Amino acid sequence: MSDTKQPWSGLSGRLETGEHILPVRVYYEDTDFSEIVYHASYLRFMERGRSDLLNLCGIHHSKLDAGVTGERLVFVVRHMDIDFLKSSHIDDILEVHTRCTEARGARTILEQKVMRGDEVLITAKVMSAVINGDGKPRRLPAELAVRLGIVKNR
Amino acid sequence: MSDTKQPWSGLSGRLETGEHILPVRVYYEDTDFSEIVYHASYLRFMERGRSDLLNLCGIHHSKLDAGVTGERLVFVVRHMDIDFLKSSHIDDILEVHTRCTEARGARTILEQKVMRGDEVLITAKVMSAVINGDGKPRRLPAELAVRLGIVKNR
Amino acid sequence: MSDTKQPWSGLSGRLETGEHILPVRVYYEDTDFSEIVYHASYLRFMERGRSDLLNLCGIHHSKLDAGVTGERLVFVVRHMDIDFLKSSHIDDILEVHTRCTEARGARTILEQKVMRGDEVLITAKVMSAVINGDGKPRRLPAELAVRLGIVKNR
Amino acid sequence: MSDTKQPWSGLSGRLETGEHILPVRVYYEDTDFSEIVYHASYLRFMERGRSDLLNLCGIHHSKLDAGVTGERLVFVVRHMDIDFLKSSHIDDILEVHTRCTEARGARTILEQKVMRGDEVLITAKVMSAVINGDGKPRRLPAELAVRLGIVKNR
Repeated sequence: MSDTKQPWSGLSGRLETGEHILPVRVYYEDTDFSEIVYHASYLRFMERGRSDLLNLCGIHHSKLDAGVTGERLVFVVRHMDIDFLKSSHIDDILEVHTRCTEARGARTILEQKVMRGDEVLITAKVMSAVINGDGKPRRLPAELAVRLGIVKNR
Repeated sequence: MSDTKQPWSGLSGRLETGEHILPVRVYYEDTDFSEIVYHASYLRFMERGRSDLLNLCGIHHSKLDAGVTGERLVFVVRHMDIDFLKSSHIDDILEVHTRCTEARGARTILEQKVMRGDEVLITAKVMSAVINGDGKPRRLPAELAVRLGIVKNR
Repeated sequence: MSDTKQPWSGLSGRLETGEHILPVRVYYEDTDFSEIVYHASYLRFMERGRSDLLNLCGIHHSKLDAGVTGERLVFVVRHMDIDFLKSSHIDDILEVHTRCTEARGARTILEQKVMRGDEVLITAKVMSAVINGDGKPRRLPAELAVRLGIVKNR
Repeated sequence: MSDTKQPWSGLSGRLETGEHILPVRVYYEDTDFSEIVYHASYLRFMERGRSDLLNLCGIHHSKLDAGVTGERLVFVVRHMDIDFLKSSHIDDILEVHTRCTEARGARTILEQKVMRGDEVLITAKVMSAVINGDGKPRRLPAELAVRLGIVKNR
């Protein structure tokens, strides 16, 4: 990770009571010829929300990848259950809401919503795991579980 | 849709007994820094499988979009349930297997697997709907349902 | 475009003297197996910069697309010349700098840089055009050219 | 790289006199709300063409990455000059044509075209380099340069 100063407050969204919120603007790249946002783009938005939730908890992919906990660790998605309820469009401003409902052992469960104002567009339940450089499952390091647990119980 | 001749046999995969199979090679664009295929890339692969299944049944997004059935129609994904079982890597050759288990009324249910040789990497259940140009749900035109039904019962 | 309130200040970056600056965080989706950002991801970042420059000038893709100037208009890229000077990594915070050097007739020329702190990673010269719903080139509406010209001459 | 048998002939396109040709179908993921193919999608198509040209020459990203030549090597793009001449649409079948015009020292120059039937949609000149695991530039291994040279001079 570079040591870039971050003069851009809010770039990683914000932690509120029990959840993380990340704003996302819809660009050309996110839409398809049916003139709405391409369904898989929401998975990219939700992954940004999960990564920034981790960032604000002091858990950085770059550091895990560099082996800061003793060996190379990366998060991988194991299961997703997604409802696509409403569509969104170019220039829309969306919010990704992320709650951590379980963080122990080898798995982390997050519940996510993509909203536009008060409308719920997408709901998803995401189960992630941590693997090492050889693809072997690893327990979430205790220190990280504690940090996520704090978010969980905020 | 252009009138391009297609000298590339097999470009849309093939219909076998009860299922459609599409080969997919893993390129740079599909991977991420963890050195495996990015989870949302599989949704792109599976959408290609669904589109080519439709293509081989004579159902073309370009024609539906142009209103060949009377009004503009596009397919949208309503629900996905996905298990990410194993990972894949740059240069891997994968196969997307797609079965149609329901095609009636406003919804179509497809079951998909992404395989590498005999290994199952991903399984997914996908519910799609058809909407018109105003975003209103529409019944799958009977003629198209019949074509999909034929695949279903092959 | 939705009427969503925007409580997220700075989401579209900021206009400074003669240029627009947009911060971009590098996520999983932007990287590839070589552990650096995938080359085409920078084109997505730069398109976000161009769109947000237009947004802050009061030019919205959603409104142009809806025909607010009399007919449907969309921006398309006609030419790009890009130097990829340095690489970037997961979690990096980048800035897209965009200057408008020409905005008249049917074409707009923008010069863009992607930076990480004081390092220039990417430089690009981008020529865009405006087309209507039938794909025909159109002059940039005078009112919009004036707005871009103001940025150009700030 | 997995040892998957490849029953899919033509999956990597074909080498003809002096050039490589790869067919590409346009899917949802490649288009944007302006109803044409998103400009950066062509860079993905062209990278597939370059990768498959290398594949058919016996040069595999997976093996270079695994250090088969003595150290980890990956190709990176250094410069691109791209003309976007015509647009394409959902379901179109395109061809990526790739010629190698220079392959020596640390750099490789490829000229690429994206065509639909006889129409040229995109032309690009791409300069690539080879770097090692530390991001240091490396000469293209002589054996690989010879293989590319054969294509160059076919």
